[in-house]
Amino acid sequence: MLYLIGLGLGDAKDITVKGLEVVKKAKKVFLEAYTSILGVNKEELEKLYGRDVILADRDLVEQQSEIILENAKTEDIAFLVVGDPFGATTHTDLVIRARQENIPYKVFHNASIMNAIGCCGLQLYNYGEAVSICFWTESWKPDSFYDKIAANRKRGLHSLCLLDIKVKEQSVENLMRGRKVYEPPRYMSVSTAVQQLLEIPKLRNLSPQESAYTEDTVAVGLARIGSDTQQIICGPMKSLVDYDLGGPLHSLVIPGEMHFLEKDMLKEFAIDVNVLENS
Amino acid sequence: MLYLIGLGLGDAKDITVKGLEVVKKAKKVFLEAYTSILGVNKEELEKLYGRDVILADRDLVEQQSEIILENAKTEDIAFLVVGDPFGATTHTDLVIRARQENIPYKVFHNASIMNAIGCCGLQLYNYGEAVSICFWTESWKPDSFYDKIAANRKRGLHSLCLLDIKVKEQSVENLMRGRKVYEPPRYMSVSTAVQQLLEIPKLRNLSPQESAYTEDTVAVGLARIGSDTQQIICGPMKSLVDYDLGGPLHSLVIPGEMHFLEKDMLKEFAIDVNVLENS
Repeated sequence: MLYLIGLGLGDAKDITVKGLEVVKKAKKVFLEAYTSILGVNKEELEKLYGRDVILADRDLVEQQSEIILENAKTEDIAFLVVGDPFGATTHTDLVIRARQENIPYKVFHNASIMNAIGCCGLQLYNYGEAVSICFWTESWKPDSFYDKIAANRKRGLHSLCLLDIKVKEQSVENLMRGRKVYEPPRYMSVSTAVQQLLEIPKLRNLSPQESAYTEDTVAVGLARIGSDTQQIICGPMKSLVDYDLGGPLHSLVIPGEMHFLEKDMLKEFAIDVNVLENS
Repeated sequence: MLYLIGLGLGDAKDITVKGLEVVKKAKKVFLEAYTSILGVNKEELEKLYGRDVILADRDLVEQQSEIILENAKTEDIAFLVVGDPFGATTHTDLVIRARQENIPYKVFHNASIMNAIGCCGLQLYNYGEAVSICFWTESWKPDSFYDKIAANRKRGLHSLCLLDIKVKEQSVENLMRGRKVYEPPRYMSVSTAVQQLLEIPKLRNLSPQESAYTEDTVAVGLARIGSDTQQIICGPMKSLVDYDLGGPLHSLVIPGEMHFLEKDMLKEFAIDVNVLENS
């Protein structure tokens, strides 16, 4: 049996009681290690579980998933995923392949950014499509997420922006030479995301009236959701550029129309409550 | 301290390890009992926790929340919520009131339908706005959710339909007479939801070409997500009308444009794989 077990967002103890039971008795325990990061390291998980944990990086999951699946044919295998198991396409792919080989599987759900984002007070059913904001380079500035945010705002909906994570990336040179040398991990901050977002209307020559948002539009920056060091800040986008939310992971929300209860909740996180009241 | 603890969707053991630790040592343990239901009853929770659990129904949470908050001023109070604590507006309201009274609070997130819906294979970041479908009566057939589904489909996005739950509702007569007599709980089935959805284009005199969907549009019916008896079925809407998915809770997804990986995953749940391939 292949068990896909969500670990939630905060620390080692965010695994469910049922999940922990499976981990303790599984033959092998894999930890997916690249689509997200957890507030704890492998050693802390091993201590709680009383088990060895095998790090499954991009190479292992995408290229050698038959190792995981082969094991699951005869034994109980736990595949741990930060957040919820269906947060990333890679895990869906693993499930599809398990089914093709008639390997039974079970999923233990957990919190992920897609629902934990509710902590800022903006109601989940008022969100439109989520967008992914990727790191720009000097010459590569994709901005299709702008159109999605614009479409959401037109309908009065909030936009959750998932910020880029670069883990185990290779430089072009190392990739070309086939050298398995990896760049240091990079996690996009709210500051970087907002800077990129504010550049788009300029690049597109949009006036403030035409643009889906301006530097005065209220946005919500969030860091380390679900952990003890969680931080939430709410203010005009221009003020978030200089605001330091500390270590990863960061997320950003650009609200649409707000219900008074949503505003009430956001006030706690506001740099300046008046800005929110007038928005 | 007020602890808002998500219980997840399946059974008693879907609480997190951290959540269980708090429940075991909290002064009082309340269980929110009306916005959703869990696959287990109070007694099973009490057995796992080794604690008495106080059922907090609509009256208690909305009208007497000062009892909960008063307790939290001096003691650790656990307030348990099925799914994730921020799944319903009521709990946001409780948090806002706690803050107004300077009562510290902590949130332990968990899976909710908003992210566990990923189990059907449709990627969460391809969903548009979620909609709520309420029970119709002979004379009251609100259909604003139709426009939201139409807007999502226009953008190629999936629509999660949350189906109505009627728990502790009073009949008009009992309400008028102030009698605290409640109707039996009702949970909308996928069948009922699809019937109502298919009636809307007729009521609005829309041709199949104009309508956001027709009886041949593929939809996904889900029951008891996250539990051992979870069921997922995928087929043309007309075929879901007669399909019995068993006990509550049910959810419905009307897909937008589908990636081939999403279709691959849905095939497992398809009444007829060919229908999916041609959609």
